[in-house]
Amino acid sequence: MNQPIRHIAVAVALAAAGPAGAAERARDLGVPFEGTPGPLNAITDVAGVEVGHRTLIRGEGKRVVGSGPVRTGVTSIFPRGKTNADDPVFAGYVALNGNGELTGTAWLSESGFLEGPILWTNTHSVGVVRDAVVSWKLRHGGADASGYPWSLPVVGETWDGELNDIDGFHVKAEDAWAAMDAAQGGAVEEGSVGGGTGMVCYELKGGIGTASRVVPAKAGGYTVGVLVQCNCGRRAQLRIAGVDLGARVAGHLVRSGDSGSILIAVATDAPLLPHQLQRLARRAALGLARTGSVSGNGSGDLFLAFSTANPGAAHPAAGKPASLQALANEAMDPLFTAVVQATEEAIVNSMLASGPMVGADGIEVIALPHDVVRGAFARAARR
Amino acid sequence: MNQPIRHIAVAVALAAAGPAGAAERARDLGVPFEGTPGPLNAITDVAGVEVGHRTLIRGEGKRVVGSGPVRTGVTSIFPRGKTNADDPVFAGYVALNGNGELTGTAWLSESGFLEGPILWTNTHSVGVVRDAVVSWKLRHGGADASGYPWSLPVVGETWDGELNDIDGFHVKAEDAWAAMDAAQGGAVEEGSVGGGTGMVCYELKGGIGTASRVVPAKAGGYTVGVLVQCNCGRRAQLRIAGVDLGARVAGHLVRSGDSGSILIAVATDAPLLPHQLQRLARRAALGLARTGSVSGNGSGDLFLAFSTANPGAAHPAAGKPASLQALANEAMDPLFTAVVQATEEAIVNSMLASGPMVGADGIEVIALPHDVVRGAFARAARR
Amino acid sequence: MNQPIRHIAVAVALAAAGPAGAAERARDLGVPFEGTPGPLNAITDVAGVEVGHRTLIRGEGKRVVGSGPVRTGVTSIFPRGKTNADDPVFAGYVALNGNGELTGTAWLSESGFLEGPILWTNTHSVGVVRDAVVSWKLRHGGADASGYPWSLPVVGETWDGELNDIDGFHVKAEDAWAAMDAAQGGAVEEGSVGGGTGMVCYELKGGIGTASRVVPAKAGGYTVGVLVQCNCGRRAQLRIAGVDLGARVAGHLVRSGDSGSILIAVATDAPLLPHQLQRLARRAALGLARTGSVSGNGSGDLFLAFSTANPGAAHPAAGKPASLQALANEAMDPLFTAVVQATEEAIVNSMLASGPMVGADGIEVIALPHDVVRGAFARAARR
Amino acid sequence: MNQPIRHIAVAVALAAAGPAGAAERARDLGVPFEGTPGPLNAITDVAGVEVGHRTLIRGEGKRVVGSGPVRTGVTSIFPRGKTNADDPVFAGYVALNGNGELTGTAWLSESGFLEGPILWTNTHSVGVVRDAVVSWKLRHGGADASGYPWSLPVVGETWDGELNDIDGFHVKAEDAWAAMDAAQGGAVEEGSVGGGTGMVCYELKGGIGTASRVVPAKAGGYTVGVLVQCNCGRRAQLRIAGVDLGARVAGHLVRSGDSGSILIAVATDAPLLPHQLQRLARRAALGLARTGSVSGNGSGDLFLAFSTANPGAAHPAAGKPASLQALANEAMDPLFTAVVQATEEAIVNSMLASGPMVGADGIEVIALPHDVVRGAFARAARR
Repeated sequence: MNQPIRHIAVAVALAAAGPAGAAERARDLGVPFEGTPGPLNAITDVAGVEVGHRTLIRGEGKRVVGSGPVRTGVTSIFPRGKTNADDPVFAGYVALNGNGELTGTAWLSESGFLEGPILWTNTHSVGVVRDAVVSWKLRHGGADASGYPWSLPVVGETWDGELNDIDGFHVKAEDAWAAMDAAQGGAVEEGSVGGGTGMVCYELKGGIGTASRVVPAKAGGYTVGVLVQCNCGRRAQLRIAGVDLGARVAGHLVRSGDSGSILIAVATDAPLLPHQLQRLARRAALGLARTGSVSGNGSGDLFLAFSTANPGAAHPAAGKPASLQALANEAMDPLFTAVVQATEEAIVNSMLASGPMVGADGIEVIALPHDVVRGAFARAARR
Repeated sequence: MNQPIRHIAVAVALAAAGPAGAAERARDLGVPFEGTPGPLNAITDVAGVEVGHRTLIRGEGKRVVGSGPVRTGVTSIFPRGKTNADDPVFAGYVALNGNGELTGTAWLSESGFLEGPILWTNTHSVGVVRDAVVSWKLRHGGADASGYPWSLPVVGETWDGELNDIDGFHVKAEDAWAAMDAAQGGAVEEGSVGGGTGMVCYELKGGIGTASRVVPAKAGGYTVGVLVQCNCGRRAQLRIAGVDLGARVAGHLVRSGDSGSILIAVATDAPLLPHQLQRLARRAALGLARTGSVSGNGSGDLFLAFSTANPGAAHPAAGKPASLQALANEAMDPLFTAVVQATEEAIVNSMLASGPMVGADGIEVIALPHDVVRGAFARAARR
Repeated sequence: MNQPIRHIAVAVALAAAGPAGAAERARDLGVPFEGTPGPLNAITDVAGVEVGHRTLIRGEGKRVVGSGPVRTGVTSIFPRGKTNADDPVFAGYVALNGNGELTGTAWLSESGFLEGPILWTNTHSVGVVRDAVVSWKLRHGGADASGYPWSLPVVGETWDGELNDIDGFHVKAEDAWAAMDAAQGGAVEEGSVGGGTGMVCYELKGGIGTASRVVPAKAGGYTVGVLVQCNCGRRAQLRIAGVDLGARVAGHLVRSGDSGSILIAVATDAPLLPHQLQRLARRAALGLARTGSVSGNGSGDLFLAFSTANPGAAHPAAGKPASLQALANEAMDPLFTAVVQATEEAIVNSMLASGPMVGADGIEVIALPHDVVRGAFARAARR
Repeated sequence: MNQPIRHIAVAVALAAAGPAGAAERARDLGVPFEGTPGPLNAITDVAGVEVGHRTLIRGEGKRVVGSGPVRTGVTSIFPRGKTNADDPVFAGYVALNGNGELTGTAWLSESGFLEGPILWTNTHSVGVVRDAVVSWKLRHGGADASGYPWSLPVVGETWDGELNDIDGFHVKAEDAWAAMDAAQGGAVEEGSVGGGTGMVCYELKGGIGTASRVVPAKAGGYTVGVLVQCNCGRRAQLRIAGVDLGARVAGHLVRSGDSGSILIAVATDAPLLPHQLQRLARRAALGLARTGSVSGNGSGDLFLAFSTANPGAAHPAAGKPASLQALANEAMDPLFTAVVQATEEAIVNSMLASGPMVGADGIEVIALPHDVVRGAFARAARR
């Protein structure tokens, strides 16, 4: 009953009329971020991490529940890549504000392991995506990486109901499978793609964003990568590298409260234990705070961190303990700093990669104009 | 592609051959439980609480993934009944062992409210049930009881993969809707029904069980009700009212580890705040312990407690605080005791109400023989 | 055996040579903070809140453990004032980074109540202050406000071991009693006083700081007050209202790692339940983040929030529930914003109120120069 | 000003009149505990663990605050022994009911390490003992085992105010030092000693108790040891190995509510990570539940678990990660079982080792009669 999936003209046109040079990212515009990014300035700078998107954009005009318009999708993150989805990674989880869903966290927190991929979608499609991860896993070997015959997938959401016919349940199992099958290393597509397709960040068009940091060699030379699905904040709150950017972009306020959410995934190759990864995840809040958020009541701000070190940790030889590596707590400050910095940058990237979008009932969410950002930082480095 | 839903002959036959008098509950057999139950000795003794089941039993013989045999279902709990599903209740959540899924707990814990019903099903059907709650809510008014345009349903699971073709994903949205539509007050059907259909408790046939306690008038006369979906424990661990019953039932050991789970919902009409309800939920662990469990690594032991007091707490007049009632912490001991006692009894009831069941690949899970229990307590009250 | 307590010449001299006009606070220097402060711009804008300090400054020169120099003290916070210390307040607690001590939080989190005052001192004097609160309570009626015959005081710490002979244990029970007896409403003395005496904030002299916000009348007109004991951060991290101030103050770097800590207390008269106050406390992290901290491994960043609403909540009539008021979760965003803003300003105030200090072994901690701050914001409002 | 420390005649007399053969422990009386204990059936079966007591018993008759009678003390636990107090152990903490104090848990939970000893004393002496640990550490090398110049000791309490002049603050720093200096391996003195001196367990004389379990060789052959300071429960709740013992001991009910507490320390040589040790600590609640407790509102039930494996984990070579060992989660069930069993037995041992005691104002707390226990289990093994 749905229309064939296609990128509709209006969206394409708006994107074209939007920021010049979609490839421009925040630091290309002169934003004086701190720290040293990895080669891609993306979560995929952490070796092995793969990201995949399935983007659903179809229909326009009046919202007819069940028909559209559709502005949504699914994003997948595989810590060790699709081909090693059966090798769990140590992970930690925190909720800054729990007005959201991230399934699988009871077991993640209990076991210390993230088993399989992370998937992000819209609020009302968490279920279909969650069960689709189970069926995908079954097709790829077994329900669970640890050898249990059951699976407890990790699936998160933010709400795209302004632009998207969210109550029409347009995401199907096939879309989740496609997002998983599409996972790959290399540069990560940002903006209105995958789970971020219909998202609104500081009342500007947002979605998926990423950034990374490499800590100094004397601190181990580890990489920290961040991926966000940004749907939070009020326009007036937005600040970038200390500058109140929200005040410089007028109009098109689409929300009556702090009703969005932000999902953040932190990846690192530093060898950290689960409780240390929870500490890392907690620092995502501090990066978010730098962009102006107060983590409003309506915001589902749920953060995960995982480490790709210690392959095989979940599968020691029968009857033997696993042999592991772990950084001293005293060595974590550079990683904390990296999380804060990369989170801040990933959020800004999510906006700059997103052109404006017109969705259901003709609601338009404008983009953060690149020239406004460029202008704000033109004269000098960060004060 | 599925067969029509029907209660197949073999299951019926086994049930008939099982415990004599399916209506016998634990205290009918002389188990010397402590405390005073409510009129129904059920969670529905808490005024307003409604429970509904959808039971799926069809097929027999060899497991063909996608075809069956099917031994599963869905159970719903409405704290204030279906007709007041839009009036959230204060609630608290704890994980004793997080090898399980209970969606919606991030927001429940953050907000202090349970919005809408609780649903229980099998592990691989959490997603379909979760989204079905959203669509059910949409049909009944709006996505969310608090007025948000989104919904974060509370859906839990235990694993029925021995008896049930769990990887066949037999639960459909319609089944979840049916479980919700079936919710009612009065006596609660126990045993192999609803979400408990295919469950195994201490390696005996288990499933849904319930019990209640009324605290003394001088302690407020409040009612505490407990509902369990019991799928946990090893046979050798089972004790009832202090007596090692597990040792008295031989054979038919179906599990190689402590791979089950138990979901527990605690209801009360005592006016308690969210943090106090979390305290109540934590006591469910102590009731579970009395039946012998050590909450094994593979067990998803996730507990909720809610209070039906304070109707309208989530919806004060615009701009006004809500007016609430709350018991002093110092008045909670009788409620703690009630939770421990009712949890213990509900677990035993879940077993005694379950006849034996033959499921996929002809695996048989035997029932706890009523005469063994009766015999253990025949001579005297609890030592 | 200790020297008489006195404010030594060198400290006075340095203070005199330090910031011109010790009464200048951050907004007097043109820092463009957001939001509307209360009349005192202090935690004491929340009616009933009282703060007291006991400051210990004596000795100079080489550190002789047990003799000095002494640069330490004790600060007390009474939510409802000293005369109502036996009426507990609802409260919530969070740890951003737990490299610190805040006694009493197990019961505060379990009960939802803060019973009695909060005291802050140095790391190695938590014990003596903790027991001194018990003895102070015993002298003033009973061990515990809730009627228990025992007391579980709330006492926090940050480490002043650079300036202070912390291993000399110079704080005595009498000092804790004096800090409690000194508690009063009205303007709060900031800087190098009380528990903040020897503290170092972003490697500048810090200590006690405070600020407040009044939320709009349509949001209830509630007041939020914040008190900090700031001892955290590296110089290079410091930013104020988005401007990198740390880079503008050279030299006198006293720490080799992020080894400080920050204690934050949030007060409000908004009627909030314990779980809502925990949400409030969590926002202190976002205000801290605005000043540049990444909450380093060595930092004990422990936050409390309490509400002065609902007097008598802990003491309902025998056998009766308490009657309470509570804001809807949906009404909390202005309070969240207020916490973030007031925390940011309180931290800056803690530095601006602190003159430079010379402590043990002649170590000097310089002050944040007022003219540097004034200069940074001279031209315009916050960008 | 205090009287010299001495074991007063009345206490000795009562002890003599009490259980015949103070060396009889629970299993000597025929209690059919499950599992296999270690050689000492004590926490010290875990190699390296040392326990020390300082017992203060002096005075009799009417309570004169500040004078006595004194029935209290201090107990210390060194995970790797006194001589390795500077080598932290991985540890985890949980609160079953937080009406108690256990300092140092913020850092223990954050860092994953227990640094230095655990000390237990009475409620109003936590502070003096806490600071005394700092001074003891300073005398033995440095404030903190991890190399910080500060210390965050772990000190817990239960309330002995019926028997002991708790408001007289009779525990001094010297007593804490003595408890630490007394720490040793080998058999652990149980009952009315150390921190357990004045404690009341199920309204019978309790105090320190211990037990251990060795898991099967195929599960690694690890040892789990438990030490308790038992001060919790109502008489009517007490059950031992499933038998209601409380009903068999009449009179001398000393408490008007569930106002006690229990501290539990779990030691193991199994290589477990901090989050796994938190899981272990959580199982102590299930062992406690077997003895009848519902963890009443007034009870401070705070549990720690630590692992002596992974020596040096906190101190990897500069710039290098630590090399660690950790059991698979799937291998933890035998350890969970061991914790539950050893906790149950340790609690019973704490009562059986305690003779009756007369304390302040002549209050007498009777002992659990050995012959009642022996009689209950005379005929047969556990039902």
